[in-house]
Amino acid sequence: MAIPVPAGFKLSGVYCGIKTLGEDPLDLSLITCDRDATAAGVYTTNLVFAAPVGLDRSRTPSQNIRAIIINSGNANACTGERGDRDAARMAELAAATCGAKADQALVLSTGIIGVFMPMEKIEAGVRDAAKLLASDEASLVNAARGMLTTDTTHKLASQSIPLGGRTVQITGMAKGAAMIGPKMATMLGLILTDAVISPADAQKILSIAVEDTFNCISVDGHMSTNDTVLLVASGAAGGQPLAGADLGTFAKALHAVAADLAKAIPLDGEGATHLVTVHVTGCANVDAARQIAKVVSESALVKTAIAGADPNWGRIVSAAGYAGVPFDASRVGLKVNGITLYVKGAPVEFDRVAASKSIRDNRDTTVELSFGEGDARARFWTTDLTAEYVRLNADYTT
Amino acid sequence: MAIPVPAGFKLSGVYCGIKTLGEDPLDLSLITCDRDATAAGVYTTNLVFAAPVGLDRSRTPSQNIRAIIINSGNANACTGERGDRDAARMAELAAATCGAKADQALVLSTGIIGVFMPMEKIEAGVRDAAKLLASDEASLVNAARGMLTTDTTHKLASQSIPLGGRTVQITGMAKGAAMIGPKMATMLGLILTDAVISPADAQKILSIAVEDTFNCISVDGHMSTNDTVLLVASGAAGGQPLAGADLGTFAKALHAVAADLAKAIPLDGEGATHLVTVHVTGCANVDAARQIAKVVSESALVKTAIAGADPNWGRIVSAAGYAGVPFDASRVGLKVNGITLYVKGAPVEFDRVAASKSIRDNRDTTVELSFGEGDARARFWTTDLTAEYVRLNADYTT
Repeated sequence: MAIPVPAGFKLSGVYCGIKTLGEDPLDLSLITCDRDATAAGVYTTNLVFAAPVGLDRSRTPSQNIRAIIINSGNANACTGERGDRDAARMAELAAATCGAKADQALVLSTGIIGVFMPMEKIEAGVRDAAKLLASDEASLVNAARGMLTTDTTHKLASQSIPLGGRTVQITGMAKGAAMIGPKMATMLGLILTDAVISPADAQKILSIAVEDTFNCISVDGHMSTNDTVLLVASGAAGGQPLAGADLGTFAKALHAVAADLAKAIPLDGEGATHLVTVHVTGCANVDAARQIAKVVSESALVKTAIAGADPNWGRIVSAAGYAGVPFDASRVGLKVNGITLYVKGAPVEFDRVAASKSIRDNRDTTVELSFGEGDARARFWTTDLTAEYVRLNADYTT
Repeated sequence: MAIPVPAGFKLSGVYCGIKTLGEDPLDLSLITCDRDATAAGVYTTNLVFAAPVGLDRSRTPSQNIRAIIINSGNANACTGERGDRDAARMAELAAATCGAKADQALVLSTGIIGVFMPMEKIEAGVRDAAKLLASDEASLVNAARGMLTTDTTHKLASQSIPLGGRTVQITGMAKGAAMIGPKMATMLGLILTDAVISPADAQKILSIAVEDTFNCISVDGHMSTNDTVLLVASGAAGGQPLAGADLGTFAKALHAVAADLAKAIPLDGEGATHLVTVHVTGCANVDAARQIAKVVSESALVKTAIAGADPNWGRIVSAAGYAGVPFDASRVGLKVNGITLYVKGAPVEFDRVAASKSIRDNRDTTVELSFGEGDARARFWTTDLTAEYVRLNADYTT
């Protein structure tokens, strides 16, 4: 199925020599917009954040963005004032390719931290990327490849929605959250749309969508210095800024794109053999549900059990028990892949062979934990934890 | 070096058939006291806690304890009212061996969860254990073995201290915190002393010691349903209840025993090849320091880096950054095994080969993270994370 580029944008992805290892070779992407675009961003809350995060944070929400430059292979994190200057220069180079001003560009970086950006390579890369800018699907794929680090494949998602007689396009790209070697591979997302939307609305709906999607995935629980999701809206679809029901429809479609991208990240987790969806229901409030889902999703014992096709209700229930959320243990229930393992605070007889086979034979595993505290629910996506993950993360020396 | 049994206690350890796997075969330990002993306990804060935890919690602090029964192979967790009755019956059986009343005993259990205790085996085991009760070191070792699950060796520690013309003995035993298969292996500790001490003081100094020792270790971040540390004081050393400077001296020795036992747990962690000591200094308060130490100690990326002998400052610093504790990132410093990797918020040149070799060649790895926020500090012990850990935890089907 073809994935369209939203109107108003051109993209490209090139290799400029930042990466030295054997991943996807593309390491620099350029995206330009033919008019001033609305931009919003959600960023890592890590106190140790990279230079491009600081730059983008200061430039969003806004409505005069013309270019985005993305590089992989170097995160420009822990690089001090020189890192800030390099990020600003990258923005300037990107903006110049479409005749925009230096402060009309955003920057996304991922890769090794504590190493200065190879600015000569970046300059040459931007020159090459500018020549290749186009709106076809191949260019979109190349741009999505330029942000990859340890990902085994690029990640794209899109939605087309009819709004007020027009078709609005939303297309996003992302890279994995897993971190490997010294590269500190970050979760990055860039969602483009041709909708007309105000900066305030863009920021609001992006924040809500990220909270329930990119912030509800866990690969290793490690929040990076560079995590960023941007929404950039060209407005090329025309019409008045989205409002009311149209804004709601758009928000829903944006959520779907963010969810598709977010799910693709654990699915491509390092060494992962299962995508685990953790549903938590019956909590007093959403924060409580999300906290339990997060703790279960990050439990090494839960994750290794799933890698081993072990329907280990004890690990799941006890992980919930230390999440710091009060609940009545005698009302807890648990299903794995639809098989009931635990009812009203006690294990029940189940077919262990069938349950184990169900985990082993399916890449998708569903964990449903229910509580008797209220109506709030949450959903997390995570991976299993395999020996291959450890091998990938241990067998590297800085 | 011989480890003495504190005066007033007799111990034994036997096999009664609870365990079926190939671990240390002993699975039931009995400890009796020839007079009413002071007892204090610190317990798991997991909302899903085992029957013996509920029983012990209701019986400590107190001063009439005569027996402790310990079993491995079955945690008596998630077993409902029948589990409570079984735990009470175990206490009754243990108390009867020394002519005490049913409520004068404490119970420690570890092992598989969600399975009822094999009470016939327990009854037979208590009968056997009662016949073997003795105060020699071999009996102490057998009692320490009876609590083991996946531990590769028993764990003992002791201190002899002169107090008011008498020699007071403190001797403790513990089992590992790692959890494996469906056995939910718990951290258990039992510290015996012949000191005379009030229940309130026993509880107070035990709580303080545990907070800084057993609560400052991390193997997999999973808090079990059964985690318990007990302090039982026979008073057989004689004299008045400890107070003032003597109580302080005793508290210090108790802390040392608790620290030795706590350190032995990650050192014997599943598949671990390194004992990692994480020192956090320069924080605004102890809670902040401890929170950072905990997050760094639990980071899968930090732990895999150490397994791979990778002096990966980026993973360590960025883990600190998401601990939820505010700090000025430009004042952060980091040393690994005494080698400076990071100063004032930026990486510095260091000999990577030497740093990697230092990690590879030593089982002990020291991580020192410094902040510029105050004078508070904390210390955590953790393990590295190896492929062997995952293999142990994944290759089991319930």
